[in-house]
Amino acid sequence: MRLAELSERSGVSAATIKYYLREGLLQPGERVTATQAAYGEEHLRRLRLVRALIQIGKVPVAVAREVVAAAEDASLDHHLRLGAATQALSRAPGPAEDDEATEAARGSVDALLKQLGWPCVQDEPSPALGTLVASVAALVRLGYPCDTAHLLPYGRLAADLAVFDLDTVQEQPTADGQIEAAVALTVLYEPVLLSLRRLAHIHESARRFRGGESTAGPRPGA
Amino acid sequence: MRLAELSERSGVSAATIKYYLREGLLQPGERVTATQAAYGEEHLRRLRLVRALIQIGKVPVAVAREVVAAAEDASLDHHLRLGAATQALSRAPGPAEDDEATEAARGSVDALLKQLGWPCVQDEPSPALGTLVASVAALVRLGYPCDTAHLLPYGRLAADLAVFDLDTVQEQPTADGQIEAAVALTVLYEPVLLSLRRLAHIHESARRFRGGESTAGPRPGA
Repeated sequence: MRLAELSERSGVSAATIKYYLREGLLQPGERVTATQAAYGEEHLRRLRLVRALIQIGKVPVAVAREVVAAAEDASLDHHLRLGAATQALSRAPGPAEDDEATEAARGSVDALLKQLGWPCVQDEPSPALGTLVASVAALVRLGYPCDTAHLLPYGRLAADLAVFDLDTVQEQPTADGQIEAAVALTVLYEPVLLSLRRLAHIHESARRFRGGESTAGPRPGA
Repeated sequence: MRLAELSERSGVSAATIKYYLREGLLQPGERVTATQAAYGEEHLRRLRLVRALIQIGKVPVAVAREVVAAAEDASLDHHLRLGAATQALSRAPGPAEDDEATEAARGSVDALLKQLGWPCVQDEPSPALGTLVASVAALVRLGYPCDTAHLLPYGRLAADLAVFDLDTVQEQPTADGQIEAAVALTVLYEPVLLSLRRLAHIHESARRFRGGESTAGPRPGA
């Protein structure tokens, strides 16, 4: 298809598509004349993914470019391509503070990973691990309980989530489709998960704190 | 304690403390002379919370001010203060697109909330609900399965998370402490949860894919 059709089918303006092409976010089309190129379904899919990363995932353009490059790096095996693509999405945390809270957080997280049985997570330093330690340290500084016992249920739920996520990734028939799905699900399920958690808070808080009102009265819409 | 001691104990510079005071993020100390004020443990706790929101939670100063104001609004009951404080943290999603994907997303989310049995979430529009619909719509546009059956396990996990979260909130002995804990846990457990999910992905992906072979297609029996 021509650029005009790609624009119409994706809902992305021609100017934005040209920008993505220049920035290397979208693979070039097949040149048919000196001034025209043809695009296929794989361009449409990539375009929708890039737009979703940037618009919904709030991923900066430079990061989206790294993700796309990692997803396309044919020299890596499937696990590593998956990892490289989603890892590019993780902003590295700031330099770790080296205080008691960070020490305590590191201890809790190490014990947690051991209990969860995630050896390769312990062995390969990743931005997510740095973020986890920094966030736990912040909670420790505020005096909230952040020992392994408190973290373990979150870790177990994360393990369950990863099983659902990877099942959805594996529903894709091709290796490229799986990489793309991993990127999309990593980024786009984050707001899904966080907003569901916020909604669950509203429900749980009403159930616990709202006197007799919400339980005694007739359930609206029920 | 004097401002210098507050600064030393919190690790926040005197200049930043003065900025927080001017911006209404920190309640004023008790004036002891024309130029000096005394601060207590509640200032220290508030200061640590505000710094964690801004540094770890990446919450903008204006939002942190709203959160603090909502947490202090004595005219609301406990559930509403909790809700108002944490709601102030949610950025409203952009205007919803009104396309087929959004319609489909709204349908899935409505059915999801019904199945989860969260009536008050359906009745009170909240920024989290808008974010959820917009994120699901983005996944629908990319062609990923986002029907109620796919969302339900995430919803159930979110419900479990909320139970842990509210248990921790209720460990706090005072109503003010509970509000503060709700704010801290809402914001600071988000990076904990997301980084644990990323780490779980690394573990699960290594378990499934390591060795180079990509196992395309659904698993037998999945």
